Amino acid sequence: MSVSPDEVKVLAFDVFGTVVDWHGSIAREVDAMRLGVSGERFAIAWRAGYLPAMERVRSGELGWTRIDDLHRLILDSVLARYGITHLSAGEIDHLNKVWHRLDPWPDTLEGLRRLKSRYTICTLSNGNLGLLTNMAKRAGLPWDLILSAEVFHHYKPDPETYLGVAGIFDLPPDQVMLVAAHKEDLHAAAACGLRSAFITRALEFGASRPVDISREPAFDFHATDLPDLASQLGC
Amino acid sequence: MSVSPDEVKVLAFDVFGTVVDWHGSIAREVDAMRLGVSGERFAIAWRAGYLPAMERVRSGELGWTRIDDLHRLILDSVLARYGITHLSAGEIDHLNKVWHRLDPWPDTLEGLRRLKSRYTICTLSNGNLGLLTNMAKRAGLPWDLILSAEVFHHYKPDPETYLGVAGIFDLPPDQVMLVAAHKEDLHAAAACGLRSAFITRALEFGASRPVDISREPAFDFHATDLPDLASQLGC
Repeated sequence: MSVSPDEVKVLAFDVFGTVVDWHGSIAREVDAMRLGVSGERFAIAWRAGYLPAMERVRSGELGWTRIDDLHRLILDSVLARYGITHLSAGEIDHLNKVWHRLDPWPDTLEGLRRLKSRYTICTLSNGNLGLLTNMAKRAGLPWDLILSAEVFHHYKPDPETYLGVAGIFDLPPDQVMLVAAHKEDLHAAAACGLRSAFITRALEFGASRPVDISREPAFDFHATDLPDLASQLGC
Repeated sequence: MSVSPDEVKVLAFDVFGTVVDWHGSIAREVDAMRLGVSGERFAIAWRAGYLPAMERVRSGELGWTRIDDLHRLILDSVLARYGITHLSAGEIDHLNKVWHRLDPWPDTLEGLRRLKSRYTICTLSNGNLGLLTNMAKRAGLPWDLILSAEVFHHYKPDPETYLGVAGIFDLPPDQVMLVAAHKEDLHAAAACGLRSAFITRALEFGASRPVDISREPAFDFHATDLPDLASQLGC
């Protein structure tokens, strides 16, 4: 461990996959709709459009566009691909907002409560503020502050997001730690001088698509879940 | 009453004076420092610089500047006016952050808890995000979302702030209600199509400077405190 828990003041959390189970939540809701496609496959197809859609914003091809609207662009194409044409506009809008209704991982609430007792905990998510607020209210996520790419008008992994968190709290970057299940996100944060905590979420993409959760020495912490991180940080 | 409680989805709160007692909190802390000036007078002098300082930003004379930094500019001039020259840089920084340590009014926590049970509750404050986060964490203010002029790079009463809240939740303005102890703030919100709830805080400027708390028919609600508003809204 290269960093003392006292040197860190703010924990900034990736949300989709790290705090909430997007894959399982979407699969369950889509299965319940009986659309003729497996919920698991639908969830994977939807999420596959996520990085390319944000890249269109990051490259400047699209002006600033919220995740709710990017999700809708991708959803329309996924529905077309599976030949699903019978949903009303209202039903499609409701389905699009399943991202506001994602369930936390089973360890999340305990982990966040413990970490909040010692640190300021905030989100740093590409999800928009309305989405993150609705999610937190429904699931009881006890954020001290909800921060989003929407505040910075930059998507992760743009440096403006990581440095933006430090700026908002008027802290040097090394007093902020990103907590995430995604190695690229952590590497980008570390390149900006933030601390990094890797949370292993092997099942983020479902049981049939295990994720690389190997330890990387570049990260300051490696934890199996949020309570494990809390224990390592003395919370 | 011109609006049904069901038509409103989001309550956006002014903070300084409406939710927390800036005058009493600053007066107490300054009195404890024994600076040779009454805490009450010091608080009034500091606050008197607030609107003119924001006006320098709103007019474009200053680029975007956070309240923490505007507070510091005003503080330096107030210290000079009272001939207070013995404080260290660290002591002045600490005093400047008294705005992060303001105490809620005695009714605030009960009122917010009740209102949160039915509505999404957020701040809409000219205070910066770090200030509002530290304040909420210390005082236990249970915001669903902390919003600030800092997100919009506009200070109230610019329309971008009121309309910004509606935009973030993807709602028409009349489904958002501003809750505030300041009539100008409520009139500006109403001019943007938001609903308005006036909270009477007669002692905002201290017992010797009572505030105009007369009823105005233009406002949708008139409440003596936050629990009174909760009762009127059926919470």
